Amino acid sequence: MEHTYAVIMAGGGGTRLWPISRKERPKQLLPLIDEETLFQGTVSRLRGLLPPERILVVTVAEQAAEMRLQAPEIPLENYLIEPSPRGTASVVGLAAAVLHQRDPQAIMAVLPSDHHIRNRDLFHYLLKAAVDVALTDYLVTLGITPLQPSTAYGYIQQGKPVDGKFNYPVYNVMRFKEKPDEATAQQLLRSGDHSWNSGMFIWKTEVILTEFRRQMPELSATLEQIAAAPDAPARNTVIQSVWNTLKVETIDYGVMEHAEKVAVLPAGGLGWSDVGSWDSLFDVLLPDMNGNIANGQHLALDTHNTLVYVGRGNSDRLVVTIGMDDIIVVDTDDALLLCKIDQAQKVKDVVAHLKKHRQERYL
Amino acid sequence: MEHTYAVIMAGGGGTRLWPISRKERPKQLLPLIDEETLFQGTVSRLRGLLPPERILVVTVAEQAAEMRLQAPEIPLENYLIEPSPRGTASVVGLAAAVLHQRDPQAIMAVLPSDHHIRNRDLFHYLLKAAVDVALTDYLVTLGITPLQPSTAYGYIQQGKPVDGKFNYPVYNVMRFKEKPDEATAQQLLRSGDHSWNSGMFIWKTEVILTEFRRQMPELSATLEQIAAAPDAPARNTVIQSVWNTLKVETIDYGVMEHAEKVAVLPAGGLGWSDVGSWDSLFDVLLPDMNGNIANGQHLALDTHNTLVYVGRGNSDRLVVTIGMDDIIVVDTDDALLLCKIDQAQKVKDVVAHLKKHRQERYL
Repeated sequence: MEHTYAVIMAGGGGTRLWPISRKERPKQLLPLIDEETLFQGTVSRLRGLLPPERILVVTVAEQAAEMRLQAPEIPLENYLIEPSPRGTASVVGLAAAVLHQRDPQAIMAVLPSDHHIRNRDLFHYLLKAAVDVALTDYLVTLGITPLQPSTAYGYIQQGKPVDGKFNYPVYNVMRFKEKPDEATAQQLLRSGDHSWNSGMFIWKTEVILTEFRRQMPELSATLEQIAAAPDAPARNTVIQSVWNTLKVETIDYGVMEHAEKVAVLPAGGLGWSDVGSWDSLFDVLLPDMNGNIANGQHLALDTHNTLVYVGRGNSDRLVVTIGMDDIIVVDTDDALLLCKIDQAQKVKDVVAHLKKHRQERYL
Repeated sequence: MEHTYAVIMAGGGGTRLWPISRKERPKQLLPLIDEETLFQGTVSRLRGLLPPERILVVTVAEQAAEMRLQAPEIPLENYLIEPSPRGTASVVGLAAAVLHQRDPQAIMAVLPSDHHIRNRDLFHYLLKAAVDVALTDYLVTLGITPLQPSTAYGYIQQGKPVDGKFNYPVYNVMRFKEKPDEATAQQLLRSGDHSWNSGMFIWKTEVILTEFRRQMPELSATLEQIAAAPDAPARNTVIQSVWNTLKVETIDYGVMEHAEKVAVLPAGGLGWSDVGSWDSLFDVLLPDMNGNIANGQHLALDTHNTLVYVGRGNSDRLVVTIGMDDIIVVDTDDALLLCKIDQAQKVKDVVAHLKKHRQERYL
């Protein structure tokens, strides 16, 4: 894994996990699944694969201080600050430009900070295999073998196998597909040749920067300006001055869709979850005989498939449910959420409503 | 209303209103419906009808102090303390014996402390009419015209009208019926000649004591012993020493069923509720357009027929419901109850469970 670096992307909000996830302390900074926060899990998952000096974090200023506290092993100079969110293309470009300046042979693995992966050994194995593919100048994505017809993810359709000898099946990407509707998702699941787009990418900085030059020349020019700055303080001044001129674009649409050599490793058995909304906790935590999950005191009468999630400060509270099916209960100091499981995506609408009505204290 | 007294019976627990109703502060001592507690409402409902000196309260020692605080207008000597619960026959007998000693011409109205009655004027009118009937040596009950086929109440079947001129229709009682099953309740509702047994009774102390002598001679003898004590302190000593020898019996089964002259006034439009369980709050409080009731901050998305009841200390909490129908949510400091409306009766099973498992802090 020489010349290999991880770039952890950590700017998101996680509004679908309200009321636990808040503006001041979003999803990735919370211990949602176990004792580690999702961000800490993303860092510790790399242990034995990469030293902390080769982990970069791209985040926003408001979250950087807390991240430093949660992962003190990562050197200060490895934190890159986005002045404001301009989409993943800008974030990836920034990290690639900075890394390339540091190590022209760099290979970078882009990793979201707010996912959960149960099978760490397999994750290491896959990353190594992906690096092997990336060394042949491919842009590599980790696909996730779908377990249900989810409409919450984009899909990647695989084509012919990539030529060469690798330790894992690798395919050329035929097409990236946006989040589908229910019926399309059913088709994609049955097709057998589609993976979920996990947002994990592996490539040489040289290759991705070449694609930026070809497909997003304006961003590319800005990145060269940033990379030309001699050191961190000067670089930050440049970033501050140019960032808001960047076009907001995702790496998927900005680069991946029309890139030349794109490969996918379809991964099953990884125990992956993007912990995107409350219903996803049923994929990550182990339900009891009645399908219930609780992280606190839960007295359940005639209750099935129900999640009772109690905030840290409320662990003494007793939650009693009678005749409840398929319900999400999230209990915090100042807010209580009750939600039918199949409407878990609507939690973000609640946050939007609170924002609109300036209920700052609950955001 | 000369020689007329009210006897408020206030020893109950109200476990079906857990977690708001607790051992230390049961249902009748709580402001469940409005600013007054149910007990205060029972007292203030008599204003304009009876002076506080003619209101007696029978309760248990643990609740007496709080009652004195809530209704300081009732004289201290009007509080009778049951050493332990021995059924309503003993309670009524005690009050009748004490009152009869005080005023041999006394007429007593037995009133539960934990009911809610919206129409106070009609209540006054009915009590006056009932006193007129009681003056003809009848044992009088207030029946409640049923609004649904409830299985939570006993029923009273009316027979022929009582002879005499009264200001309200009065019937001889044909039969008392225990709480029916669902199918029987449907029949009783359709019959048109059945009322709910409200537990409100009006009679001369002389007449009820005669019935005790005839039907419950042991209780009657004990009551005479108690009444023979010269004053309150001496009387309390006697009560303490004899109380636990009494047979546990209700006034309905012990006396009413086989009494000679029993009349019922079937009352409609009283806005009566025994506030027996959480679902009964839908009869007392006014739901919004979606059938929801909330006493605090409730943000309701796709939610119908749902009660959100927040304890006093939690009024700052925001409760968000998404996709909820027919649910009861009761939120207190240390416990949260979620219950399907049609299972509201099971709340008492929760309290029994907590008692059995010695979870005293939640009782």
